[in-house]
Amino acid sequence: MTPHAAPVTAATTAPAAPGVPDPQAGAAVKAADRAHVFHSWSAQGLIDPLAVAGAEGAYFWDYEGNRYLDFTSGLVYTNIGYQHPRVVAAIQEQAAKLTTFAPAFAIDVRSEAARLIAERTPGDLDKIFFTNGGAEAVENAARMARLHTGRPKIMSAYRSYHGATSTAINLTGDPRRWASDTASAGVVRFWAPFLYRSPFYAETEAQECERALAHLEDTIAFEGPQSIAAIILETVPGTAGIMTPPPGYLAGVRELCDRHGIVLVLDEVMAGFGRTGAWFAADHFGVVPDLLTFAKGVNSGYVPLGGVAISEKIAATFDKRPYPGGLTYSGHPLACAAAVATIQVMEDEKVVEQAAHLGENVLGPGLRALAERHPSVGEVRGLGAFWALDLVRNKETREPLVPYNAQGEANAPMAAFGAACKKNGLWPFINMNRTHAVPACNITEAEAKEGLAALDAALAVADEHTEHTA
Amino acid sequence: MTPHAAPVTAATTAPAAPGVPDPQAGAAVKAADRAHVFHSWSAQGLIDPLAVAGAEGAYFWDYEGNRYLDFTSGLVYTNIGYQHPRVVAAIQEQAAKLTTFAPAFAIDVRSEAARLIAERTPGDLDKIFFTNGGAEAVENAARMARLHTGRPKIMSAYRSYHGATSTAINLTGDPRRWASDTASAGVVRFWAPFLYRSPFYAETEAQECERALAHLEDTIAFEGPQSIAAIILETVPGTAGIMTPPPGYLAGVRELCDRHGIVLVLDEVMAGFGRTGAWFAADHFGVVPDLLTFAKGVNSGYVPLGGVAISEKIAATFDKRPYPGGLTYSGHPLACAAAVATIQVMEDEKVVEQAAHLGENVLGPGLRALAERHPSVGEVRGLGAFWALDLVRNKETREPLVPYNAQGEANAPMAAFGAACKKNGLWPFINMNRTHAVPACNITEAEAKEGLAALDAALAVADEHTEHTA
Repeated sequence: MTPHAAPVTAATTAPAAPGVPDPQAGAAVKAADRAHVFHSWSAQGLIDPLAVAGAEGAYFWDYEGNRYLDFTSGLVYTNIGYQHPRVVAAIQEQAAKLTTFAPAFAIDVRSEAARLIAERTPGDLDKIFFTNGGAEAVENAARMARLHTGRPKIMSAYRSYHGATSTAINLTGDPRRWASDTASAGVVRFWAPFLYRSPFYAETEAQECERALAHLEDTIAFEGPQSIAAIILETVPGTAGIMTPPPGYLAGVRELCDRHGIVLVLDEVMAGFGRTGAWFAADHFGVVPDLLTFAKGVNSGYVPLGGVAISEKIAATFDKRPYPGGLTYSGHPLACAAAVATIQVMEDEKVVEQAAHLGENVLGPGLRALAERHPSVGEVRGLGAFWALDLVRNKETREPLVPYNAQGEANAPMAAFGAACKKNGLWPFINMNRTHAVPACNITEAEAKEGLAALDAALAVADEHTEHTA
Repeated sequence: MTPHAAPVTAATTAPAAPGVPDPQAGAAVKAADRAHVFHSWSAQGLIDPLAVAGAEGAYFWDYEGNRYLDFTSGLVYTNIGYQHPRVVAAIQEQAAKLTTFAPAFAIDVRSEAARLIAERTPGDLDKIFFTNGGAEAVENAARMARLHTGRPKIMSAYRSYHGATSTAINLTGDPRRWASDTASAGVVRFWAPFLYRSPFYAETEAQECERALAHLEDTIAFEGPQSIAAIILETVPGTAGIMTPPPGYLAGVRELCDRHGIVLVLDEVMAGFGRTGAWFAADHFGVVPDLLTFAKGVNSGYVPLGGVAISEKIAATFDKRPYPGGLTYSGHPLACAAAVATIQVMEDEKVVEQAAHLGENVLGPGLRALAERHPSVGEVRGLGAFWALDLVRNKETREPLVPYNAQGEANAPMAAFGAACKKNGLWPFINMNRTHAVPACNITEAEAKEGLAALDAALAVADEHTEHTA
């Protein structure tokens, strides 16, 4: 009722290409944003959002003429980069044909998206329940597991993120949970393997795996296996730090689940659809979950879409008994059309293979070379187009460059590192004491090397905050 | 990994227009659907989803050559009808320009959508937090209210629906909650006014209003006002039965909230954006909530979008303190572009005014005339393009035509009524013993009358199940 900003009209249309500054348009966009857009995870009075004018492939640009190599893929979701012409065309065609239709009906593109996803998921995960995104996928996976088993509890790991709706945020094992924690959502948390900062005082991967499984087995025993509906794990935890599980861990979790009739949910919202150099991260470990949650990469976020891939056994639970969950936009035709086109692009352009190639031959070796040169890089972890640099004050003690969940001044070293990245034309992914290299899965080797060079320069700033230089 | 269906290829493209049957294509769509799509709120083995080939305006059609007048607007969301050319064009243009971008940035179309919404919301609800849909909007409204007040409980009404994520479904007052009810989500339920089936033995609207407010006041007192963060109400409850609140009720609730420092959340996911013949249903009652949730009509569901409109007071709570909630697709550019175009279409084509006109001059009088002719119609309720027919076995006793939450054989009278509607070319909205007339808000008088005629014929079938004919 009280508009506080001028209309953002056609006159404020974004420049079609980078390098054509239009600061006046940028100011109008920013003014309306500050007047009317309430941003996630932010103190509204303390943020200064960059006005973005356009994006293409691995890059985006602002209204000032600055172009950035995006090493975040948005929030790790534009796996095929921005504005892929085939997916844009598919969205345009579907919009012309049938942009939306209610979920109770059979629609060609909804059927085809489900078929293409089921064709790629591991094992017998052949039924697809579509949602709008990852949080709703986790909500529904939790509901399916509880109703399938008749048990109340769900176990999840510290160092995890599963979304921001009530069950999803209560399952989350990072500080984003704290403000919404009901302490009553039937969640039991445990520690997953992370050798570099081992919760189990392990010194080798084999030891970490063995101890993590013993910890999980003990926790299940003391909680009472008959009370546990599901264990949910990010196959490779994402924002929490890209901790690839040691060989044998996921197979061990699968065995514990089988032994106790517990549903195994693998959350592949971030790790799925090519990110790790495989269609699904589970493929690296030969493990088939009972439920697999996805979103983001399924259509590179061109239209909001997520979902749950469901095993035959769990689907059968809802064969004669109604599944008590739903949403207006389940299987939204426009979102499904974007998924169909994205999956076809990923096949035709070998995007999954490119992510694997980048990981093995460019990002992996390149980041490890940075670690050798920079005292601030404690560990390099990852695979495919999914890498974390764990920044430290001291390589020996492994003390993080900034404390856990540091705010304000305590976080200054990471802020300085981030600013240096941007100055060097790289938009970085930063979480606590880590930076993640998570570009589009189909960037070129030259783009990857451009990113590595920018990180190299910015890490010199991080180095200044290590004890090496103190 | 195990595709159970043939590809749904270009050969199965939907017919561009009704009346061109292509049953082979429909069979392929259906086969892939049954093999791979897990449908909401359904027993997967007992459903037979209609394969829909296309839709335009107020109609959709299948692959057999049947065309239906859609008196459901999908799930009461396509307020401007299907495939409006201006909104389709806006989606196509935005897809070409910037289909997606992460939420932390200022984006022209995100700013403009927020500005246009804030311009229309009542009072000082000027900051917009975008979600993917209504459930997430309710989740975030609940979180905002709890953090703003520091109190745990939220009060919601029986006969309500607020979405299917954990908090939203626990707030819901209908059987869809039962399977997901945690009995621990800090929810307190109460009875809202509904004169036709009065929980308060009232005989007039004024009495119903007075008693409903006394009941709410007593419940607040016995729960302890200092423990109550929010009261959430659908301004006009939707799927629960379109019970327009009596004059004074919402103002009374607003006063109770003010007296006790309780946040008033009005859920306008279904009632908002023109459905009631006003931009927001709250406009009819001169009441300004502290938070207003929306989705559906904001862009007629052409791209998934929802959100919370936030008062200055609550926004200020998160001015220096971070708001601890978010989602990858908050303020999705493609969804916002569809909202901008939809709002412009609604202005230019006077869609809100048309909904009001239909309610006052066509649907309202027409449905009341049906009630006079048919013994099965106990009450006609509604406004704008938002109407319910409460079907009964006996007008005197008001016994519902089928019992509450009837399944299978017990629901046969409503199933027969629904089948009769479809036979007459009308796709009906049916919930328990009610049918709702909720077409697109911009249908013509002729289309509305076509729908009334089909209902007239189908109600003859319902009449057979009344005591009048028994």
